[in-house]
Amino acid sequence: MTSEAAETQTFMAEFLRPRMIRFSDCDPAGIVFYPQYFVMLNGLVEDWVSEGLGIDYHALISERRIGLPTVRLEADFRAVSRMGDKVTLGLAVERLGSRSLTLVLRCFDPASGELRMQVKQVLVTTSLESHRAVEIPQDMRAAILRGATPSRA
Amino acid sequence: MTSEAAETQTFMAEFLRPRMIRFSDCDPAGIVFYPQYFVMLNGLVEDWVSEGLGIDYHALISERRIGLPTVRLEADFRAVSRMGDKVTLGLAVERLGSRSLTLVLRCFDPASGELRMQVKQVLVTTSLESHRAVEIPQDMRAAILRGATPSRA
Amino acid sequence: MTSEAAETQTFMAEFLRPRMIRFSDCDPAGIVFYPQYFVMLNGLVEDWVSEGLGIDYHALISERRIGLPTVRLEADFRAVSRMGDKVTLGLAVERLGSRSLTLVLRCFDPASGELRMQVKQVLVTTSLESHRAVEIPQDMRAAILRGATPSRA
Amino acid sequence: MTSEAAETQTFMAEFLRPRMIRFSDCDPAGIVFYPQYFVMLNGLVEDWVSEGLGIDYHALISERRIGLPTVRLEADFRAVSRMGDKVTLGLAVERLGSRSLTLVLRCFDPASGELRMQVKQVLVTTSLESHRAVEIPQDMRAAILRGATPSRA
Repeated sequence: MTSEAAETQTFMAEFLRPRMIRFSDCDPAGIVFYPQYFVMLNGLVEDWVSEGLGIDYHALISERRIGLPTVRLEADFRAVSRMGDKVTLGLAVERLGSRSLTLVLRCFDPASGELRMQVKQVLVTTSLESHRAVEIPQDMRAAILRGATPSRA
Repeated sequence: MTSEAAETQTFMAEFLRPRMIRFSDCDPAGIVFYPQYFVMLNGLVEDWVSEGLGIDYHALISERRIGLPTVRLEADFRAVSRMGDKVTLGLAVERLGSRSLTLVLRCFDPASGELRMQVKQVLVTTSLESHRAVEIPQDMRAAILRGATPSRA
Repeated sequence: MTSEAAETQTFMAEFLRPRMIRFSDCDPAGIVFYPQYFVMLNGLVEDWVSEGLGIDYHALISERRIGLPTVRLEADFRAVSRMGDKVTLGLAVERLGSRSLTLVLRCFDPASGELRMQVKQVLVTTSLESHRAVEIPQDMRAAILRGATPSRA
Repeated sequence: MTSEAAETQTFMAEFLRPRMIRFSDCDPAGIVFYPQYFVMLNGLVEDWVSEGLGIDYHALISERRIGLPTVRLEADFRAVSRMGDKVTLGLAVERLGSRSLTLVLRCFDPASGELRMQVKQVLVTTSLESHRAVEIPQDMRAAILRGATPSRA
């Protein structure tokens, strides 16, 4: 088995966080205004970097000047979320490249398991000076690999 | 030529609106916070329904109780937009179904033509009472078809 | 001592919640975009009603059709909050009227005690059908009075 | 008449811009979510600096590194604004200090003249490096004074 194939198989753990749907997340139809899901999931990426990977997200941006812009996303919205709903947000790494990574992010009802929405998102590590892609920092790559549970082990 | 094929070919005109990138659209990296593109494009859909199709968008929601939720989107982010940039937002209908339609929405620099981001988005017409799909209202369908420029004419 | 004077003296307890300043709260200057403080504090009011008073905030809005719009606010911004800051949000009731209440809301650094911003805000209970003021619901009034710690007791 | 008294009297002209209330401005009660008024009015300040004063607002922030944070505001909300409403936003200078200025900002219905909300807001010019107050830039001060219509002339 090549190491590349191994990498693909090992990103199994999902990083989870609870979130309540707030008044300010909802639109005049009384349900989550869909751009607000991306704001929530951006917060999940922050928490994952800081707490899941143990890397200071805010120092990454403001001191190390590394950004994590999204270059592509595919989202499916399956069921509505209403004000007051207690949902779970989940993040899994699907692919780890040299300058980009693919995440699968989702929002679901933890009681019923009902999927509300899911997004596959490609993020690139960039220099915030040039807005050009740079290598994923070594500490971030190592933490992602460490967090991975080898499926064959 | 079948009428279905004809429909597919005719949605050629792009609805365009200028937009300035504001301070409140941008993040600590000084560029558009990507969920904000979806807020901008939601405004473009509003303007297209109201001005392009001649249908009162707000009455559609609050009186006729028809919603236009997004069920799927695929977005590509190609270049950053910065505070103060004067961009153009564009909307084209790619597909008109019975209860859904597919739009291609984009943000570009009108001076250079540089594409900043583009999204293909599937919207469904729903009852805001049941949040279930309903037929696209006849006046809306007629306006979309009327607005279309037959490529073969 | 009249009961009105007593009411004025007794709203002493402050409802507190931690909050991290997120990337999406901040502007191109790297600090909290000030309207975002009001979004955060609106969330605090939600939590206070639900958890502090034990009244389902979302049912209040969507089922009982009672709104809590702000009719007046005075805010002072004393020090900046930056991305990643772990702040505390606090809420205290300053005045309980028949159809309105005055809250003092603030954001501070729990480590140093530094006040970031403070707002005195008058909220009115309204019917969401007519958008007119109505009496504060009895269960809400009772919970506010119960939560109060009489300063003279 | 002292020059200070003269300054006080002369800031008469109101800078006006139309704005439509959008779906994304509104909350589950179907009316403007009040923090969103501050986002709209922040955009008005941008337009006033750029178009009213003829000073590039975005260069002020990103190149000259001068910020315009709000240090105090008092807002009154008088009537609700609903999705689809065509309102006018207005800005007037009430006071011009050495490092701060006081603006009166309002949102009204241009058809009936009904005031929706009004805010008196104190802004400080700061260095975005130190977040400390600095003198109002000379070109900005000159433009404000030039724009003023002396009431006695």
